[in-house]
Amino acid sequence: MAALGLTYARLCAGLNFTRVCNGLAGRHTGLLMHLTRSASGMTIAQIDEEVAKLLQLKAQIGGDDGKHVFVLKTPKGTRDYNPKQMAIREKVFNTIISCFKRHGAETIDTPVFELKETLTGKYGEDSKLIYDLKDQGGELLSLRYDLTVPFARYLAMNKITNIKRYHIAKVYRRDNPAMTRGRYREFYQCDFDIAGQYDPMIPDAECLRIVYEILSELELGDFRIKVNDRRILDGMFAVCGVPDDKFRTICSSVDKLDKMPWEEVKNEIVKEKGLPEEVADQIGEYVNMQAGGMELAEQLLQDPKLSKSKAACAGLTDIKLLFSFLQLFKVTDKVVFDLSLARGLDYYTGVIYEAILTQAGVAPIPTPQEANGSAGGDDGPVSVGSVAGGGRYDGLVGMFDPKGRKVPCVGVSIGIERIFSIMEQKAETSAEKVRTTETQVMVASAQKNLLEERLKLTSELWEGGIKAEVMYKRNPKLLSQLQHCEDTGIPLVAILGEQELCDGVVKLRNVATREEVDVSRADLVEEIKRRTLQS
Amino acid sequence: MAALGLTYARLCAGLNFTRVCNGLAGRHTGLLMHLTRSASGMTIAQIDEEVAKLLQLKAQIGGDDGKHVFVLKTPKGTRDYNPKQMAIREKVFNTIISCFKRHGAETIDTPVFELKETLTGKYGEDSKLIYDLKDQGGELLSLRYDLTVPFARYLAMNKITNIKRYHIAKVYRRDNPAMTRGRYREFYQCDFDIAGQYDPMIPDAECLRIVYEILSELELGDFRIKVNDRRILDGMFAVCGVPDDKFRTICSSVDKLDKMPWEEVKNEIVKEKGLPEEVADQIGEYVNMQAGGMELAEQLLQDPKLSKSKAACAGLTDIKLLFSFLQLFKVTDKVVFDLSLARGLDYYTGVIYEAILTQAGVAPIPTPQEANGSAGGDDGPVSVGSVAGGGRYDGLVGMFDPKGRKVPCVGVSIGIERIFSIMEQKAETSAEKVRTTETQVMVASAQKNLLEERLKLTSELWEGGIKAEVMYKRNPKLLSQLQHCEDTGIPLVAILGEQELCDGVVKLRNVATREEVDVSRADLVEEIKRRTLQS
Repeated sequence: MAALGLTYARLCAGLNFTRVCNGLAGRHTGLLMHLTRSASGMTIAQIDEEVAKLLQLKAQIGGDDGKHVFVLKTPKGTRDYNPKQMAIREKVFNTIISCFKRHGAETIDTPVFELKETLTGKYGEDSKLIYDLKDQGGELLSLRYDLTVPFARYLAMNKITNIKRYHIAKVYRRDNPAMTRGRYREFYQCDFDIAGQYDPMIPDAECLRIVYEILSELELGDFRIKVNDRRILDGMFAVCGVPDDKFRTICSSVDKLDKMPWEEVKNEIVKEKGLPEEVADQIGEYVNMQAGGMELAEQLLQDPKLSKSKAACAGLTDIKLLFSFLQLFKVTDKVVFDLSLARGLDYYTGVIYEAILTQAGVAPIPTPQEANGSAGGDDGPVSVGSVAGGGRYDGLVGMFDPKGRKVPCVGVSIGIERIFSIMEQKAETSAEKVRTTETQVMVASAQKNLLEERLKLTSELWEGGIKAEVMYKRNPKLLSQLQHCEDTGIPLVAILGEQELCDGVVKLRNVATREEVDVSRADLVEEIKRRTLQS
Repeated sequence: MAALGLTYARLCAGLNFTRVCNGLAGRHTGLLMHLTRSASGMTIAQIDEEVAKLLQLKAQIGGDDGKHVFVLKTPKGTRDYNPKQMAIREKVFNTIISCFKRHGAETIDTPVFELKETLTGKYGEDSKLIYDLKDQGGELLSLRYDLTVPFARYLAMNKITNIKRYHIAKVYRRDNPAMTRGRYREFYQCDFDIAGQYDPMIPDAECLRIVYEILSELELGDFRIKVNDRRILDGMFAVCGVPDDKFRTICSSVDKLDKMPWEEVKNEIVKEKGLPEEVADQIGEYVNMQAGGMELAEQLLQDPKLSKSKAACAGLTDIKLLFSFLQLFKVTDKVVFDLSLARGLDYYTGVIYEAILTQAGVAPIPTPQEANGSAGGDDGPVSVGSVAGGGRYDGLVGMFDPKGRKVPCVGVSIGIERIFSIMEQKAETSAEKVRTTETQVMVASAQKNLLEERLKLTSELWEGGIKAEVMYKRNPKLLSQLQHCEDTGIPLVAILGEQELCDGVVKLRNVATREEVDVSRADLVEEIKRRTLQS
């Protein structure tokens, strides 16, 4: 009888039993029931027979051995980038990285997966969106959900208490993606964070200045940066009568104000989260206040109710200080203090912010909800979704430190995928052609049997640091060589013929003007450099 | 009784049963045995009790609910890159990308995971090293194992028949990594491939020229590029008497010649793969031949046995042609034709190559096997492992095309992780300090209460495109501001004081020489640009 348990265990361990059981639970419970029921009287032969049945079932469900109709696609919610998209992506990244470097940032990289427990308990309700790797023996792993938690893990692990770093990498969320609006299951994040114990609001203000610089330089149209503080939200919830243990979940509800009207949010707070209607109404009074600047913070500090909350007062005082720095940084024309801003993530502890584009023209088409549901009773331009966001998270690193030592952090994440979508749209409507290579010259020939001479010249050009291409044909037609230049934007052609070889020259042709001149072979590299510097 | 099967199935489906069973198989078979044995007479209450026991067991093994000792680490076989490593990585990538662009390549990107079936049947014996994602509903996914198979999928999916592209991205292998030697479970690949129907050996020769350029420019010491052809190997196996269906597995054995001596490889061929000893000895005669160039190909074309194989003759003729192009590209001093080169992957169909560094000094320490087991009876310098490899794969794209249309491809992959390791070692022994930021100037003050003025000046510098930092303290000490410059290599300090503010100037200090001059505020941006251009 001992063999029965062992066979069973071996079956479970070796044969991706979960998968079989999933199928069984839905469709084939009978077989396993039968197996279990007759267990007390089973022989090894019978067990083997049942195992064979299970294996057959597994093949039907679609295991490794079954025949499939092969589907040629990328996984749901993901995409390839073609060379044109990559050229645009490279341009956007260069702008962003230049800005991060201008602000003195270093960069780091972390693995695409983390130990599962590193991510556990960091994302609240969104934890269900984490991709887990299959248990193939060894550690339990998950794909990173953002770059912030790995950053905090990195700081704690290496006992780093001061760093200004950026990190550009892909993150993964099992969301239901709306890909036409630039949302994916695999997407890039561009994060900039400042870790360290500093005087209040100075690094926070620099983060906002960075958002301002990047969105301005990318020329995405007008934008607005909303600012709030988790302490103000918490204080507001407290004075409105929300129990402490419901702060985070009510915060999640308020966060939806950029996607749905207040009435729906209120509904969620009352019906789903079980708060009294009066409480919801009081919250509504605050979050529906017109967004403002330093004066709004001043006004709220005088608010008879809110001023009773220590947390709210601390937050409001810091907002005032923040705005004074933002004035020095000359970015106050785009920044508003907005009580309706909540941000979804659990780990924020202080200032939070989010940037939105306010010109719908160049942006992905908003859903009806977005078009209607104006945040905070704001009658301004239609929101086309967030393109950057972040805030202060002073407790996250401490969650990883064995002794709970805190490292205060503030950071910002650029919503690069949405920016790519907009840039792609702009590129499509623009007259200017996007080049996908940087080739300066094509080495060509009008005559036959000059392959060797073409290869030799091409090699010389590479040697001189020139970006050069040559056709991989023994005897290509001159027309097809010129056509390739037209198609890919190569500005120059170096043409070889018997006469040129005799004379020690190359005929250099300008593809756009069709003008041709003989250039001595010794001067060719310099001449190409000179000409492509101009163009 | 129906409830029993259902509960069981639910248990299996919901509770990561495989994991529980793994534990049970090793340690707790008794409980499951007991559960199974008593099944025919169990009540629902008893079942619930057994379920509770299993859950408790799961918690002990370490499920989501149990208390863990939290481990602060990256997953096995992976690593973080710190800012210094990133600076080195950026430099290496820039060299490689410049080379790819010099050869007219575009770039693409693909998702980090693919449908599991996209990877199925492409990697032979190594398929067991593929990371699978957990089945969380929806598609079955695996992390990419290389960049070649996703590239082929991309070509077939988009019906692309001509492209020259590079792709730099991370790939994943559940190998047992030797991290000290620069081998990881997550690592970068840098691939360059040319797809298209062209005249023989021209793109193949360009790939070798690219390897030559990159390894030369990175200054990794001397290197050698081994070249062979799968058709020559197949022909050789055929004339030695290897049955057709064993070509690939014998190829895998021969591939190990760079890691173990011929005697061990022969042993594997005879004992594990079941070939007669005479056959193995005949193979040994060929693979132990001294590596050579065009003459070796010529000599083998006259070989009475090998010349009977059509495949071998086609391969040898192409090797001769390849060497004639390599002469034009001036790289024959580093390239050898070596019959012992086999390459592990299934999908190669023609020319194959591999580059090794031959100077042990700068490279990771080789294992004893590597140090002893010289490949092909070669008495040359000790191999320190492959840093680049590739070949022709004319059939892979066709495996993805619904109509089996072929797109011939040839490519090369740069073994970037090993190169990183070497560069890091070099950086450590070098006197030159690696800078991790590009900051040009630090805005500082010797006096108190000048935070606002410092922020204002910093903002002006950012506006002028200067990379500038400022300390996030209200009243930092001048010494600590200067110390930060020393530590991070910032060359200039812009010092503000009451006097300078009055005079409309800034004291510009050279950190290295400690020399200070007053610069008018209006000229500051230009002066900093001028000075940092020089340095």
